[in-house]
Amino acid sequence: MSTPDHGKSGQPVTMRDVAKAAGVSVATVSHVVNDKPGARIGDEARRRVQEVVAELGYRPNALAKTLSRGSSRFIGLVADAIATTPFAGQIIHGAQDEAWKHGFVLLVANTEGNAEVEDDAIAMMLEHQVRGILYSTWYHHEITVPEALRQTDAVLVDCFASGSGLPAIVPDEERGGRTATEELIAAGHRRIAFLNTITPSPAQTGRLAGYRAALEAAQIPSDDSLVFLAEPQQEGGYAATADVLASGATAVFCHNDRVAMGLYDGLRENGLRIPDDVAVIGFDNQDVIAAHLRPPLSTVALPHYELGAAGVRMLLGLEIPVETLRVECPPILRHSV
Amino acid sequence: MSTPDHGKSGQPVTMRDVAKAAGVSVATVSHVVNDKPGARIGDEARRRVQEVVAELGYRPNALAKTLSRGSSRFIGLVADAIATTPFAGQIIHGAQDEAWKHGFVLLVANTEGNAEVEDDAIAMMLEHQVRGILYSTWYHHEITVPEALRQTDAVLVDCFASGSGLPAIVPDEERGGRTATEELIAAGHRRIAFLNTITPSPAQTGRLAGYRAALEAAQIPSDDSLVFLAEPQQEGGYAATADVLASGATAVFCHNDRVAMGLYDGLRENGLRIPDDVAVIGFDNQDVIAAHLRPPLSTVALPHYELGAAGVRMLLGLEIPVETLRVECPPILRHSV
Repeated sequence: MSTPDHGKSGQPVTMRDVAKAAGVSVATVSHVVNDKPGARIGDEARRRVQEVVAELGYRPNALAKTLSRGSSRFIGLVADAIATTPFAGQIIHGAQDEAWKHGFVLLVANTEGNAEVEDDAIAMMLEHQVRGILYSTWYHHEITVPEALRQTDAVLVDCFASGSGLPAIVPDEERGGRTATEELIAAGHRRIAFLNTITPSPAQTGRLAGYRAALEAAQIPSDDSLVFLAEPQQEGGYAATADVLASGATAVFCHNDRVAMGLYDGLRENGLRIPDDVAVIGFDNQDVIAAHLRPPLSTVALPHYELGAAGVRMLLGLEIPVETLRVECPPILRHSV
Repeated sequence: MSTPDHGKSGQPVTMRDVAKAAGVSVATVSHVVNDKPGARIGDEARRRVQEVVAELGYRPNALAKTLSRGSSRFIGLVADAIATTPFAGQIIHGAQDEAWKHGFVLLVANTEGNAEVEDDAIAMMLEHQVRGILYSTWYHHEITVPEALRQTDAVLVDCFASGSGLPAIVPDEERGGRTATEELIAAGHRRIAFLNTITPSPAQTGRLAGYRAALEAAQIPSDDSLVFLAEPQQEGGYAATADVLASGATAVFCHNDRVAMGLYDGLRENGLRIPDDVAVIGFDNQDVIAAHLRPPLSTVALPHYELGAAGVRMLLGLEIPVETLRVECPPILRHSV
């Protein structure tokens, strides 16, 4: 079911091609590509192989690799509440599409964050000899790695565990914050408020850093009196309206689309038009909301689909191994800026 | 992992207890409870067994039953897009909780409605000897049963296939529509508009029938000039504002919460207050929206969790078999009525 990827020549690139170009043995390429524990490969040889893999566009045949290992066609996805909340379902979609592409079936266990259910789910997956497990969360935060996860290959998706040695695929919060702010600057704004969340998280610090970086790059002095903290939902955005207006901001970067939705209500109650009187940009590209506000909300998308897909690729050895893979949050421009 | 349920005496009710009370053999009880194909049980005996099962609260030990059948601890859930849309994720939650409760693991395949992926997913599930398959959709509609589904026990969840012989668990749209309308009547309204969807569906006809039934029960003459059709999202609700106002309605039952959200914007632009000037009730209890509108929206909940849970119970023989099980849509009262 797996189709080999093709190199630039149109011919599938083989492990032999990589070995030849890197000046190493096929066994060495196999060890590097499969990241075999215990294999002693020098740093220099490993680096050369990885460069050639990237250059030639080599993609191991995941199915063949799996069969030779004697594991099953399953990839496990342990999710806290992704399938059941309206927030990050596209992680499953992306992981599933990528898994199917390589001949694997995604076995999803939604644990609702219950540790006992989680342990049982991982045990069941191990029992069914999954190729590996994606461990993922419905919002980006640091987690403690469940002990059982150490018994197989694992990749963290939309979460991370510092020092755990497990690769993590996360949204690039800082770059996303910068993107959002740059859109407001590009529309001519210089006095830009940031309605950040009160909840400590990588999104809180990352988006703030991106906001500041965008201002600095545009030589706009950073002004902390323009940064406000709000509950990360509609009520928070609405409650912050008076502060935002008092600050004299002409544009507002909201921590997420729910906050923007609440701010919309607050601005309207003050007789202000979006974007004519105040421009608003959100974050998340939240389904059901973003495209359907009046006016439709410009925002920055959380790349949930891509997080899931990249997680599967990382698990199958189809991504160059890195400790943290940060995925871009692209701008989605509608009519609020 | 399965714990026996207990009867009214506090002792687990056994198959022997059921047989004794029904005056039949244990084998007959087993055949009725397990709904074995080919078993010839008279209608009268079957009815007696089912009555006693309900009366004594007998619950077969699902795990033991499964083991004796030689099938696995898996229950399959084939979903079109439930895991990836923000609409019906709680179907998975309910199915999973119920499956775990009985010692089963839910194997979820989200197919995005792709027939080929669906066939492959069902084949994989059969290969892994699932106890049965829940076939479910993210919104209530009639489906064509995939041929492969005939090879195992199957239950349709949030969908149905007339004449297929497969049990269907669906929301009680009519009763839900009646509930919503009754809330408006109870608040003193007599001129009640219904903003129905333009999309033909069981929700469209069922909620309308419920609206009419509630009016009739309250001896309010039905007036078709108060029934409007709208796109089933925010834009539809907003666009219908003028018609609703021209109708002289003092209260509006909206086909769903997204329509209500759009109507909120339209009413506000006309300087009207909710619920003082116009009362609004929705349908769905949509996450992210319903509780967070200004004012928070009174609505009727789609019982997604219960649909999933009941689906698993039906599959495991823990519900009295019926062709269609309609699950109640409970009212969720907030501040818009």
